[in-house]
Amino acid sequence: MARRKSKNTEKLKVMMLGGLYEIGKNLAVIEYGDEMMIVDCGLGFPEEDMPGIDLVIPDITYLEKNYEKITGIVLTHGHEDHIGALPYVLKQISPPVYGTPLTIGILEKKLSEHTFDIIPELITVNAGDTVKLGTSFSVEFINVNHSIADAVCLAIKTPLGTIIHSGDFKIDLTPIESKMINLTRLGQLGDEGVLLLMCESTNAERQGYTPSERKVGASLDNIFFRHADKRITIATFSSNVHRVQQIINAAEKYGRKVAITGRSMVNVVNVAIRLGYMHAAEGILIDISEIKKYKPEQLTIVSTGSQGEPMSALYRMAFSEHDKVELNEKDVVIISANAIPGNEKFVNKIINELFKKGVTVLHDAVADVHVSGHACREELKTMHALTKPKYFMPIHGEYRHLASHKELAMQMGEKEENIFLADIGKVLEIDEDGARFNGTVPSGKVLVDGYGVGDVGSIVLRDRRHLAEDGIIVVVTTLHMDEQLVMAGPDIVSRGFVYVRESEELMDDLKELSLAVIETCFDNGISDFAQIKNKIKDELSKYIYQKTKRRPMILPIIMSL
Amino acid sequence: MARRKSKNTEKLKVMMLGGLYEIGKNLAVIEYGDEMMIVDCGLGFPEEDMPGIDLVIPDITYLEKNYEKITGIVLTHGHEDHIGALPYVLKQISPPVYGTPLTIGILEKKLSEHTFDIIPELITVNAGDTVKLGTSFSVEFINVNHSIADAVCLAIKTPLGTIIHSGDFKIDLTPIESKMINLTRLGQLGDEGVLLLMCESTNAERQGYTPSERKVGASLDNIFFRHADKRITIATFSSNVHRVQQIINAAEKYGRKVAITGRSMVNVVNVAIRLGYMHAAEGILIDISEIKKYKPEQLTIVSTGSQGEPMSALYRMAFSEHDKVELNEKDVVIISANAIPGNEKFVNKIINELFKKGVTVLHDAVADVHVSGHACREELKTMHALTKPKYFMPIHGEYRHLASHKELAMQMGEKEENIFLADIGKVLEIDEDGARFNGTVPSGKVLVDGYGVGDVGSIVLRDRRHLAEDGIIVVVTTLHMDEQLVMAGPDIVSRGFVYVRESEELMDDLKELSLAVIETCFDNGISDFAQIKNKIKDELSKYIYQKTKRRPMILPIIMSL
Repeated sequence: MARRKSKNTEKLKVMMLGGLYEIGKNLAVIEYGDEMMIVDCGLGFPEEDMPGIDLVIPDITYLEKNYEKITGIVLTHGHEDHIGALPYVLKQISPPVYGTPLTIGILEKKLSEHTFDIIPELITVNAGDTVKLGTSFSVEFINVNHSIADAVCLAIKTPLGTIIHSGDFKIDLTPIESKMINLTRLGQLGDEGVLLLMCESTNAERQGYTPSERKVGASLDNIFFRHADKRITIATFSSNVHRVQQIINAAEKYGRKVAITGRSMVNVVNVAIRLGYMHAAEGILIDISEIKKYKPEQLTIVSTGSQGEPMSALYRMAFSEHDKVELNEKDVVIISANAIPGNEKFVNKIINELFKKGVTVLHDAVADVHVSGHACREELKTMHALTKPKYFMPIHGEYRHLASHKELAMQMGEKEENIFLADIGKVLEIDEDGARFNGTVPSGKVLVDGYGVGDVGSIVLRDRRHLAEDGIIVVVTTLHMDEQLVMAGPDIVSRGFVYVRESEELMDDLKELSLAVIETCFDNGISDFAQIKNKIKDELSKYIYQKTKRRPMILPIIMSL
Repeated sequence: MARRKSKNTEKLKVMMLGGLYEIGKNLAVIEYGDEMMIVDCGLGFPEEDMPGIDLVIPDITYLEKNYEKITGIVLTHGHEDHIGALPYVLKQISPPVYGTPLTIGILEKKLSEHTFDIIPELITVNAGDTVKLGTSFSVEFINVNHSIADAVCLAIKTPLGTIIHSGDFKIDLTPIESKMINLTRLGQLGDEGVLLLMCESTNAERQGYTPSERKVGASLDNIFFRHADKRITIATFSSNVHRVQQIINAAEKYGRKVAITGRSMVNVVNVAIRLGYMHAAEGILIDISEIKKYKPEQLTIVSTGSQGEPMSALYRMAFSEHDKVELNEKDVVIISANAIPGNEKFVNKIINELFKKGVTVLHDAVADVHVSGHACREELKTMHALTKPKYFMPIHGEYRHLASHKELAMQMGEKEENIFLADIGKVLEIDEDGARFNGTVPSGKVLVDGYGVGDVGSIVLRDRRHLAEDGIIVVVTTLHMDEQLVMAGPDIVSRGFVYVRESEELMDDLKELSLAVIETCFDNGISDFAQIKNKIKDELSKYIYQKTKRRPMILPIIMSL
């Protein structure tokens, strides 16, 4: 018995169900014995080859199968890519959810738009707190800096040692109304011994340090000073509470009122003020409907739409569709954000529209109106230097970022064999003998389209892309099968293919060709619908490609009398 | 009579049929009396809201209507956005086309893939030459620097004065195997008096000067030196003859062979070598099929795909689909280009795949492997300072670039009332009394899809986008109208909507609902097909949205016996 106790033969398992090889849908699972805990539960946005899809969430088959083992979900901060899948996931599994006040506040608002069989249990903790999850895990929440207030990283104590999960972080030596990242505590944990560091990799390719959020404040002050005669509108990420705070500060200093527009911005500002993460002097904040009472130079508008999202407040202002705000030469618009890859064109469209209106446009290419919320290489090195992990797993990034982060860790003296470049669903197994990848669990993407979660898969997407490419041609005919007679049709109906009036001749040809195919089938004794339909499809496809070099979807429908 | 002669009452008209508010499809028209000339004739690429479209070309209705007035088409250089629409436009109008040898060489290759009723007349000119176009115009070709060899700007003498059309240009004080932009001649023309400057605006927002192409050569040399033990593959724009020349030079210096892959790269290199715009020592160039004979460190591969284009040579190499090249840890890949807005995601995908293969990837964010081909602000100022135009029209740019260029011109002392921010089809009219916008001519975008030119319009595109978003539901039924009987169906067929097995119940509901609608119509004496179909569409749309929050296209088809 003594011998068995001296060596812990139980294994610790760590796996990512999202947050690797792609941006978004962060979800880590840590497992020991028959207990399991989850870190973050985020959503992703659809790729351009996923038409009609609203959101992407992680495949949680593995969690559903093991729901009774799950002791809790721990959240690092309130960004969509870390909490956005919870409204869907909490319908399937319902462990308690732990997060800091702002994170839980944002989550509550989000969950209130959904209905649940089991009401989710949300537990508020503060940086510095430690919670026990089951018998195997205890989680300490440690203050970090990020582009949202109240972000934390995690020290997860397990029977085999401590895991540090960085969440998303930067090192801000002069943060806005919050504390600097708790480097001291990370250093203490490092001295005590860290088994595994799981560290975000977003900026692993960027040299140096990310500037302090305060730098944006200085730029804003400068812009407010220089444009004292104009109205100033600032679009930024709604969750960037500190950015909005700095805007309020500048407005206050220069004697302006602040009006908020855009649903998510209004939501977050309300939550942040209620919880004390944002402060505005009495009378500074006004309703957007009140702006008519003030002169342009007395106003600041804070808006959504920094990614160029169609129908966002900024988009509507730019395209004269906003019912409260009309922009003109008396306006300055600041886009206080960087375009997330893929959104550049949308942002560009808005900038062009603003220029047409004579608006003065300031964006991060021409003024210092944005800083990143993620650690650059020197900050990542600081994390490694303080925590001195035995094993390291780079997370939260595309492959190029993970690979750069690995190379950085090796520069810091970590051994290649102790660095694990994971893949979605791949299980990192750690025991007293070492660490290794061993097996995989079900994982992948689940697509959300309207009310449907997971009912749109690869075939439906392939069809949508095909339909988008060259449209559809429906060939419909009514047959009397016993007598082998064509009773009606074939009729040809097309959508998204070509103007009908431009192609009447082609449509007539297709009709004739379809009829000929059916008659040939009858002549050859073929009466199987599937066979006839396939022949129609093949013949029409060939003919259309030869005539037009296009490949519309061909959909033959046979009705039988 | 003397009085009438002393004043020229004829008007000079200048209009852009492309190249404004968007990238690509550059086309300028200059008109005097009953003569007309054209500068450039380029194509554009489809926006993301144009599914299935291959190319976009300018609407040339106005040119077709006036074809007998057109005295010639003058080309500034051989880029797609300046010559790419000619294969389509020369089928409608066929004036002589003038260009420098490389421009005409590239064009010839392009035209050889099309058939024409009237063989296009291509006339080769050299920088320094002047050609007469009709009685009103003479065009002088003036050497400029750009990211393709043999680029020129134009001095167009008209009865009312000289127009300078910049084409695309930069000022390269140390160009590769070509002459520096002829600033002296531009200055002489400025001294003689320039009526109108039409100047490109691509980099009008960028401060300073664009670096010399030679800077890339220095970086390449450095990379070749540092990676002497690896194979080096470089992806760049196929038309960037000087870039490819620098690659050949570096390969020669470091004792490597050069293999070319990618159709357009092979085409351009062949034309450039034949015409003497590119030089390689005997035996340096090898066929891509010969690379197996050499060790990796003896090889350089020049490839297409710098924009991440699917099926380009680089894409195929990255995704292991290239039949001649397999990449691994012994490879360095240089992406010697910047991603054109909208292509960032495609390039990113390739970079991630290359990292997965262990390839060392160098791109313009981490090494100086690319410079722009367009003039930055200080260079634009040089153009304005030398030509001292009476009137100025910024061209070739989105609105934001045109607006920045206008602001630059005003900094240079030009008067706001003499600067004309045009729009596609808007006519700038100049006479001895002044200049003003007066009227418009037909203009716009013509979409090319397969063999179809202009047969896909806004309705077809709207349908394609609708189909892509949520798919299509076809409701088909055979009715006996006289007896008001449903003979077959209603059958429901869907594509791109949802997995059928996930939605059997819904499909059954839709069937029942359709039947109910038809029967209600019969009961109410409605027998008009259009009315019945509309009612089916309305009812099904409502029902489906309520159940799924999706809006598939509903296509009811009625067959009548």
